[in-house]
Amino acid sequence: MADLRSDTVTRPTAGMREAMATAAVGDDVFGDDPTVNALELHVAALFGHEAALFAPSGTMANQIALQLVVAPGGELLAGADAHVVTYELGAAAMLGGISTRTWSPDSAALDPERIAGMIRPAGYPSVPTSAIAVEQTHNLGGGGVVPLSVLQDLRAAADAHGIALHCDGARIWHAHVADGVPLAEYGALFDTLSVCLSKGLGAPIGSLVVGSREKIARARILRKRMGGGMRQVGVLAAAGRYALDHHVQRLAEDHERAHQIAEALAEFGVVEPDRVRTNLVPLDLSKSALDAPTLAAEAAKQGVLIAAMLPRTARLVTHLDVDDAAVDHAIDVLSSLLA
Amino acid sequence: MADLRSDTVTRPTAGMREAMATAAVGDDVFGDDPTVNALELHVAALFGHEAALFAPSGTMANQIALQLVVAPGGELLAGADAHVVTYELGAAAMLGGISTRTWSPDSAALDPERIAGMIRPAGYPSVPTSAIAVEQTHNLGGGGVVPLSVLQDLRAAADAHGIALHCDGARIWHAHVADGVPLAEYGALFDTLSVCLSKGLGAPIGSLVVGSREKIARARILRKRMGGGMRQVGVLAAAGRYALDHHVQRLAEDHERAHQIAEALAEFGVVEPDRVRTNLVPLDLSKSALDAPTLAAEAAKQGVLIAAMLPRTARLVTHLDVDDAAVDHAIDVLSSLLA
Amino acid sequence: MADLRSDTVTRPTAGMREAMATAAVGDDVFGDDPTVNALELHVAALFGHEAALFAPSGTMANQIALQLVVAPGGELLAGADAHVVTYELGAAAMLGGISTRTWSPDSAALDPERIAGMIRPAGYPSVPTSAIAVEQTHNLGGGGVVPLSVLQDLRAAADAHGIALHCDGARIWHAHVADGVPLAEYGALFDTLSVCLSKGLGAPIGSLVVGSREKIARARILRKRMGGGMRQVGVLAAAGRYALDHHVQRLAEDHERAHQIAEALAEFGVVEPDRVRTNLVPLDLSKSALDAPTLAAEAAKQGVLIAAMLPRTARLVTHLDVDDAAVDHAIDVLSSLLA
Amino acid sequence: MADLRSDTVTRPTAGMREAMATAAVGDDVFGDDPTVNALELHVAALFGHEAALFAPSGTMANQIALQLVVAPGGELLAGADAHVVTYELGAAAMLGGISTRTWSPDSAALDPERIAGMIRPAGYPSVPTSAIAVEQTHNLGGGGVVPLSVLQDLRAAADAHGIALHCDGARIWHAHVADGVPLAEYGALFDTLSVCLSKGLGAPIGSLVVGSREKIARARILRKRMGGGMRQVGVLAAAGRYALDHHVQRLAEDHERAHQIAEALAEFGVVEPDRVRTNLVPLDLSKSALDAPTLAAEAAKQGVLIAAMLPRTARLVTHLDVDDAAVDHAIDVLSSLLA
Repeated sequence: MADLRSDTVTRPTAGMREAMATAAVGDDVFGDDPTVNALELHVAALFGHEAALFAPSGTMANQIALQLVVAPGGELLAGADAHVVTYELGAAAMLGGISTRTWSPDSAALDPERIAGMIRPAGYPSVPTSAIAVEQTHNLGGGGVVPLSVLQDLRAAADAHGIALHCDGARIWHAHVADGVPLAEYGALFDTLSVCLSKGLGAPIGSLVVGSREKIARARILRKRMGGGMRQVGVLAAAGRYALDHHVQRLAEDHERAHQIAEALAEFGVVEPDRVRTNLVPLDLSKSALDAPTLAAEAAKQGVLIAAMLPRTARLVTHLDVDDAAVDHAIDVLSSLLA
Repeated sequence: MADLRSDTVTRPTAGMREAMATAAVGDDVFGDDPTVNALELHVAALFGHEAALFAPSGTMANQIALQLVVAPGGELLAGADAHVVTYELGAAAMLGGISTRTWSPDSAALDPERIAGMIRPAGYPSVPTSAIAVEQTHNLGGGGVVPLSVLQDLRAAADAHGIALHCDGARIWHAHVADGVPLAEYGALFDTLSVCLSKGLGAPIGSLVVGSREKIARARILRKRMGGGMRQVGVLAAAGRYALDHHVQRLAEDHERAHQIAEALAEFGVVEPDRVRTNLVPLDLSKSALDAPTLAAEAAKQGVLIAAMLPRTARLVTHLDVDDAAVDHAIDVLSSLLA
Repeated sequence: MADLRSDTVTRPTAGMREAMATAAVGDDVFGDDPTVNALELHVAALFGHEAALFAPSGTMANQIALQLVVAPGGELLAGADAHVVTYELGAAAMLGGISTRTWSPDSAALDPERIAGMIRPAGYPSVPTSAIAVEQTHNLGGGGVVPLSVLQDLRAAADAHGIALHCDGARIWHAHVADGVPLAEYGALFDTLSVCLSKGLGAPIGSLVVGSREKIARARILRKRMGGGMRQVGVLAAAGRYALDHHVQRLAEDHERAHQIAEALAEFGVVEPDRVRTNLVPLDLSKSALDAPTLAAEAAKQGVLIAAMLPRTARLVTHLDVDDAAVDHAIDVLSSLLA
Repeated sequence: MADLRSDTVTRPTAGMREAMATAAVGDDVFGDDPTVNALELHVAALFGHEAALFAPSGTMANQIALQLVVAPGGELLAGADAHVVTYELGAAAMLGGISTRTWSPDSAALDPERIAGMIRPAGYPSVPTSAIAVEQTHNLGGGGVVPLSVLQDLRAAADAHGIALHCDGARIWHAHVADGVPLAEYGALFDTLSVCLSKGLGAPIGSLVVGSREKIARARILRKRMGGGMRQVGVLAAAGRYALDHHVQRLAEDHERAHQIAEALAEFGVVEPDRVRTNLVPLDLSKSALDAPTLAAEAAKQGVLIAAMLPRTARLVTHLDVDDAAVDHAIDVLSSLLA
């Protein structure tokens, strides 16, 4: 069985389980869990920020961050294919009263000038823009890495208008490894970041919101209201810390395997290998005989699990639990189906 | 004084005042106001729909309609410059929990195929799209008229995906006059429409939501929650009916005057006369020495009022209370300022 | 026909219509309507406040005020039978994200000490209380007048905890007339008030939010988001001003007639005349053979309209359009039905 | 150190850690985690329901359940001191648009008839009541157990009006042990229940929503929007299952110890031992020289941690990590402080 649906399917390793089993814990709602406290400080430091907060999911980490930077009734600019707009079930609007105005999907080629042009200043009859959200790496953008210079331009645009910049950094580790940009260099560009331990890094559960001490204090309240206040979180934080200590640099292997898949499937016109720089392999089936659900169903019958993201978009993801044999098997099965 | 800020500044005419003063009225919260009941039926019939509901503003009419076609947590597609996204202060998200995903601003050239491509079906992990909103004529698009064929294509796309189509028709009267398309032909394309009596038509207050009997029954509840349930509405409905009976065809005069202004100011590179087809004259000041607030302030000193819509976008609007002398005066003042 | 369903059913008088027909108007969204501007200042002054804002309904005036004094996620204390909790369709929660904690229905005997005991301070894990709302006179409380001393005690409790006090004063004019308390003396006790022109005072449409200049500036934005920004509001404001100038003191007549009805129906055990101090006559049908909808339907057949408020609560209301003959007729019809 | 702040402070036992370390896991967002799937079925079966859903906290479990039984804009009846109203930071209103109308705090003596009298039927101008929430045991009610007959009466009232009944059963295990009522007998009375594994049962993290298959399918979507969709949840579910298998019956020891504390402190007039039937010991400091924060601070200096719930209400809680020595120490310290 090759499970390439998502890097969220990884199972905790033996070392990780050991770390969980021996973690010192306390009641995190009271601020008493030493392991999660240490993890929060560690992650904040990685990104050069003051504080961080553990959350049960990337969706909650993102939504807390958005609520920190956009008041109810305010406006967020984001990509039309952003995770916060697409895969969080309307949470920004429904839970936070946040209005989203989106730029068109081609975020592979994120255009800072065009985004800057969408910012609406205060003092006019329109809703003023409060924040911009970018995603690094970009999920529906096929794991594309936003160049540092583009992010710097966005930061400058945000500063020029006095608005905030949020990074949905669920897979920022992959950008860090692919482009060699230090995490702190990314961190310096954003008011808030969300990062995930349970995707490429392989921890079972956990994300963090990163920001200033003041913001994270407010985040604690927002997290409680959303139902993210948990108790002996150390059992999860220990796994997350283990993942950070052992599984970041090895992402290069996942990137290599993803690229290998892309090269093998390129002949079917469903993917451009040059655009596969991290661990996601998006398959564009718009000209294929099979749509995404069908391809996924057929592949599953032969032991290869892939994700149908949209009717004509499928996705393969390499991760900790995908080895060379799984890659070879996936290539064989998909090649025969796409042929 | 030439007041070209908006067609909302019109004062009720003598005939309209007379209609208001003699209107039969009742308590509309109990459904007892004969004048508003008649107006609602009349407007519904104009658009070939079953029912309509009076609302105190275009914003409320739009927001009621959006809440009718998108459940809390659901998704609406609209233009990034749409009134419902830009000028209603985040109401869709804040009041209705509605998530907006927007296409890029160039709605002058509304592209049905591209919009259709943004629709997200149910059954995937993404938020499914519930409705599309279009604006006819388009305010920030400079009063542009969306061609009937484009609207028909959007209807087809909506039908293909089983989603709804809403028309923000605050100035649909202008499209009707400019393109000669019957109102009922527009009406047939939409699940819901909002129309305004207090803009080009010159009534002091009032908009309507148009739709099926079932939808309008629900709209009555939504209106009450939003604080739009009013009492002896007949005093306003009488003005609205007068406006419908007397002020629709004369919009051609406003269009003519707007075009005249555009031609006069074209030499300053701020407007393309060919794109001014209704009563709005947008001034693009991106290459001008004056920004919009400055131009508006300077013109006001000489008795010409215009609107600063965005830092580099100003707007002139012709209407019932703008005659030839006002147009000439405005041209003189703006020409000297832009020179 | 005697229409005693509500004091909202009054039709504008000839003098009021004349005032409307000749009112100076402008576009209130631009702040240009002289008649509404004057009315707002006048009403603010009546209550000794800095500013006021016109709204299309009492519901909107209340909800704007609540949003002014309770941030999204915050808590409001109110009576379980308060209009803001009962008759505004969940607007506080749905539109404002406001949590309501309510005291038990017997608001006729409003107990300031008990209410003070419900206030939750900040700094504990519970949601802190942001404001208290009281209703003067109290609609479901049968038009009961809250004694000035009780309101003073509530003010003291609010001050002691640094929270706000809102008055739903839709019928505060009746309290003023019944108890002889100057409006400004009421006004001094509240952070915000809402008052209605379209109930006992007889104007066709209109309510106002009253408060500080800072609050009313914010209220203008909240009103726009809720769809309450209207244009030539002077046509309505003129009616409102006429009502304030001519119809306040005459409320004593309505009170007298209501009391007369209560005395006549007391023998059937459905109302206590001593508790009918203003223009509302609540009928408690808990021990009656007829429930409220049936009584209302039967009375309607004989030309007497009353309101079924709840299954076993009906209500009669005297007002500008209810004269002695109507009262006599209503007493006859209801007596025979209740007998 | 005796930590009596809450039963949420328990640390996982060795057996529990072992269960976590060896748990079979999968990606629960894809429905692939066998351990959480088994736990959900097990808990559903305990209460005689079809399905259940794991959630990261009691707050999220409650809020999901409330959103299942009350649509946005609808009304919930609950106690003014209920956890869902008091300790969930306004989530019902802010996240779900749910309006709360509350009965007065004395829920120790929950009065079904009075609550039934608060239900508002549909078909009147008031907001119709959609559901009632009760808490078993009742946290701010001092761990009081609602008698089965009272719950049966509430079920009958709910049925009579066609509305739903939710049980906040975070500590329903304690009621089960204290009153000997089978869990399935409780389960049969409610449309939805929330239950916690991380309080008295001693698991580190986790709660569940229990209900019909249709409701739990919807709950999965609501959970994702709120950010409660997690990945290899089996590591937590294993702990929860261990807790259910080993820590339910032993709650009787906690009850015994709590009662012992209450008896010892009764002489200071802060608690009535007869009302302490489970593991919570509420201290009423309204007549004490020390307020709750001061008492908590002073006790902490001597190694006894208690919770300041409100200015004059403190709370002690017995649990898995409180042994006889800790009880003795707490009694000594508090007695000397209260003396």
